[in-house]
Amino acid sequence: MIVSFASGQDEFTAALAEIARETEVMLARLLPVPEGPEARLFEAMRYATLGGGKRFRPFLVVASSALFGVSRQAALRVAAAVEMLHAYSLVHDDLPCMDDDDFRRGQPTVHKAFDEATAVLVGDSLLTLAFEVLADEQTHGDPKVRAELVQTLARAGGGRGMTGGQMLDLLAAHQPLDEQGVTRLQRMKTGALIEFCCLAGAVLGKASPPLRHALIGYGRDLGFAFQIADDLLDVTGRPEEVGKKTGKDGSAGKATLVAMLGVEGARATARRLADQAKDHLGPFEARAELLRQAVEFVITRRN
Amino acid sequence: MIVSFASGQDEFTAALAEIARETEVMLARLLPVPEGPEARLFEAMRYATLGGGKRFRPFLVVASSALFGVSRQAALRVAAAVEMLHAYSLVHDDLPCMDDDDFRRGQPTVHKAFDEATAVLVGDSLLTLAFEVLADEQTHGDPKVRAELVQTLARAGGGRGMTGGQMLDLLAAHQPLDEQGVTRLQRMKTGALIEFCCLAGAVLGKASPPLRHALIGYGRDLGFAFQIADDLLDVTGRPEEVGKKTGKDGSAGKATLVAMLGVEGARATARRLADQAKDHLGPFEARAELLRQAVEFVITRRN
Repeated sequence: MIVSFASGQDEFTAALAEIARETEVMLARLLPVPEGPEARLFEAMRYATLGGGKRFRPFLVVASSALFGVSRQAALRVAAAVEMLHAYSLVHDDLPCMDDDDFRRGQPTVHKAFDEATAVLVGDSLLTLAFEVLADEQTHGDPKVRAELVQTLARAGGGRGMTGGQMLDLLAAHQPLDEQGVTRLQRMKTGALIEFCCLAGAVLGKASPPLRHALIGYGRDLGFAFQIADDLLDVTGRPEEVGKKTGKDGSAGKATLVAMLGVEGARATARRLADQAKDHLGPFEARAELLRQAVEFVITRRN
Repeated sequence: MIVSFASGQDEFTAALAEIARETEVMLARLLPVPEGPEARLFEAMRYATLGGGKRFRPFLVVASSALFGVSRQAALRVAAAVEMLHAYSLVHDDLPCMDDDDFRRGQPTVHKAFDEATAVLVGDSLLTLAFEVLADEQTHGDPKVRAELVQTLARAGGGRGMTGGQMLDLLAAHQPLDEQGVTRLQRMKTGALIEFCCLAGAVLGKASPPLRHALIGYGRDLGFAFQIADDLLDVTGRPEEVGKKTGKDGSAGKATLVAMLGVEGARATARRLADQAKDHLGPFEARAELLRQAVEFVITRRN
């Protein structure tokens, strides 16, 4: 069993790296630098999106798309759009008026490498481009699919999803949340986008409602496990492995489930969510093996 | 002739006011405040979008839609989406790291009435919601139309349109532009969105290519005339009429066509553009009368 688990993780790690590489190529293609002085904006947009990250969200888009035989190019365009949206949220989150971070993945943040005004425009432009890419007929021949991708990504990224979660996060600095409040915040702030990634394959593949719901359930449990694992790394990880400062949440007084449940309690919850996530994949049988491995990756990763 | 012109302007003014009112109702409907602490975000989004402005862009969407018998509700949803995008650009433009404005239309700007982090999220959320509204099937029964609306609005609002123009505007503070550079900046920064508004009716109404191009040409000339008129107001307007500080461009050293061509030269250019804009409306005959009146409004307005 240990051998098969290890080889499963090898298979997953290889797939993750390959999808990251392909996503990078797609992003570079979708972000050509124009002539003229606005080139600076596009260079900053490339700086914010290229050359880094595990590309876990693109992996989920591509792996869920593979369940339905969706073309790799279509999946990669949606993956790139998700990554643009994710990158925009990081650029704006890092701004001095938000989290005020100078570094991300060991590199100066966009407002440090360029300037604050450029960082605002980079985020705005990436968000806009994400929707342009989804609505383009190169993404899918059926306009109904394109419109649904736009609508579901906008819901995941908007005030009832990601930006609403960021608002809750800002407010939580002043009024501490209870367990239910933290769960809700995280589901909106990071969970909604992960759910979208898992659903994206079903939308692109015009899946039946039961299969859609299976992927939504998977994405929800996975996203939650992902966030708990992230909080655990902040408490238990070593900075040289995690690749960023640890202990940030505690010193910022942030309410996390780890603070509420303790390290062991949080680990048990993550384990339970991981099992639940895999249970949702039943209907896909062996075809969903990569998505099962992704669950193990999420709760055992060290960075 | 003077009498008919005056009554034409009365007709236009009444239509503009009515569309502004209906747009307001639609915006309020599309921005319900949810339960929970994220209510603050939605209150700030409402603050940024409701209760003000001539709503000239919504007027263009509704008037161009009327040429093709598009339902008023569909046109108003697109009008509201455009207004969300316009409002987001103002909220981010007003930020301390951008134009650093404390007031807009006599009210504190969003980052003053709330705070900077909220203002960033308000802009992000309005931009996202604009695309969600366009992609929703309530906007149009044909998903091809919805996808095209998303794609064309994203192009108008992104790095090759509005945000690219804002980047040029930031850079122009350091390296002065020539006439061609100013024209390009303005076409991207404000022209692209006005063009979208005029095209929107043709997209909603599935117009033939020649009629689409007629509206694109109209929008381009109108948008340019609009910007020159705005610059003229900054130089020649009285603050109590214009409703904001005047002389800002000159004191900020901004390159405008008025600075380059002089007041009389700029007026002559605006007049020429206005006539060109109306010429494009030929194919629509008498049905485009409101859009013709809009041209006169743009170049004769005092605020």
